[in-house]
Amino acid sequence: MKISFIGAGNIAWHLAPALERAGHSIKEVYSRHLKNAEKLCKNLYDAEAQAHVNFSRSKAQLFIIAVTDGSLPEVLEHLILPPQAIVVHTSGSHGVGVFDAKKYPLAGVFYLLQTFSRAKPIQMEEVPICIEGSNQEVESILLKLAASISKNVQLVSSQNRKTLHIAAVFACNFTNHLYSIAAEILKDKNLSLDLLKPLMQETLEKALELPPKEAQTGPAYRGDANIIQEHLAYLEKFPTYQQIYRLLTESIIKVKNADDGS
Amino acid sequence: MKISFIGAGNIAWHLAPALERAGHSIKEVYSRHLKNAEKLCKNLYDAEAQAHVNFSRSKAQLFIIAVTDGSLPEVLEHLILPPQAIVVHTSGSHGVGVFDAKKYPLAGVFYLLQTFSRAKPIQMEEVPICIEGSNQEVESILLKLAASISKNVQLVSSQNRKTLHIAAVFACNFTNHLYSIAAEILKDKNLSLDLLKPLMQETLEKALELPPKEAQTGPAYRGDANIIQEHLAYLEKFPTYQQIYRLLTESIIKVKNADDGS
Repeated sequence: MKISFIGAGNIAWHLAPALERAGHSIKEVYSRHLKNAEKLCKNLYDAEAQAHVNFSRSKAQLFIIAVTDGSLPEVLEHLILPPQAIVVHTSGSHGVGVFDAKKYPLAGVFYLLQTFSRAKPIQMEEVPICIEGSNQEVESILLKLAASISKNVQLVSSQNRKTLHIAAVFACNFTNHLYSIAAEILKDKNLSLDLLKPLMQETLEKALELPPKEAQTGPAYRGDANIIQEHLAYLEKFPTYQQIYRLLTESIIKVKNADDGS
Repeated sequence: MKISFIGAGNIAWHLAPALERAGHSIKEVYSRHLKNAEKLCKNLYDAEAQAHVNFSRSKAQLFIIAVTDGSLPEVLEHLILPPQAIVVHTSGSHGVGVFDAKKYPLAGVFYLLQTFSRAKPIQMEEVPICIEGSNQEVESILLKLAASISKNVQLVSSQNRKTLHIAAVFACNFTNHLYSIAAEILKDKNLSLDLLKPLMQETLEKALELPPKEAQTGPAYRGDANIIQEHLAYLEKFPTYQQIYRLLTESIIKVKNADDGS
């Protein structure tokens, strides 16, 4: 397929070369900052960098909008596409409804359920890709395209994508914040997070093998009230973390009691 | 060294064979439930299972108490050791002070900072071992013993071990609970946690490479108030998880603002 990118950030940085490797051809890359587009184009076969969103003369059949959630509506306002072009966004939080059906009759979502950093290579064939289209024909084109770069492709409705996104906030964003709280509690006593790393790895490995509920351990799960009280007293000097400790402990106990009672 | 185990649970299950492989000899294994001790002894060279804690005739030089935190005080009340024996516990939460200095002059802590499951083999040489002794001689014996099975050995005071334990509750027990919340939110819509697994792995990998604070992403970190409100509205039917979402979001914003301001 002939494809153009609107946006030259982390997603485009990984997705555009992966599509080329699968035999597709990248025609143009737009970025507000032309330099970013040029930088990405250097990694591509013969894509052209451009600083405007008028694609009326483009040969591309598919336009992938990979910009931040916040700038998507503005991009859609100014974007000009050639007739018959399909347009997709890569956002987890916007529905397919963000595309005005009159202006964009052939629209869809191409959502990569992964976190991308420019410096860190990613195994694209392992990345779950969630597809949605404004009609069945678009959907089947997008499914085929996604399957050419990943073996983990699913049709996911806007509603389910929202659920996935919320779950990802818990399993990833919040999890990372807990790592960062652990690091801060340790740093306060000049201890390093390194000591916890084998345990962090093993915790994840268990949760990948077992339903995480069955892998639950710790003072809350054992109902060890003495230890919990000691920990809460220790956390007096970190009031927010004390609140988090209390709430998560209560939640673990609640889930356990519900399961024991069922 | 000649070593006996009090307790035949998950820690003894992994630690006793690891010590044998390093050339030490396991003499006795005690368990309240003799069958558990017998089961572990089957994996050992010539250890004997016993159902009482009178070790007055034992040839062991070191006694490793690997029981639950709650049963440690009771075990210590009844335990009878041969003269000159060293005794250690493997608990993260009890100090070395749990050993009465008159009854147990040669005492210490041998804390393996890892989560053990019977079915899952563990790379013992990667497990951080935190050592503490009631005197320097005990400490140097324990350090040498730990170094014979792991390359990650540290002298850690009771106070610092408590800090480590609290940090581990955040980075591991609470993290696992967040995985389990994510699984429940997905299950509610018949979606599988499998879709999130690559993202969970990448999140951990990033936190192992970068300080986790620098790896933070997500709606809270971006300050995306619209998405946060949508997510909170979605979570109406999971009131505890809604509270957790709100509190962790506030905490991420607080940390970010403190860093931006500094």
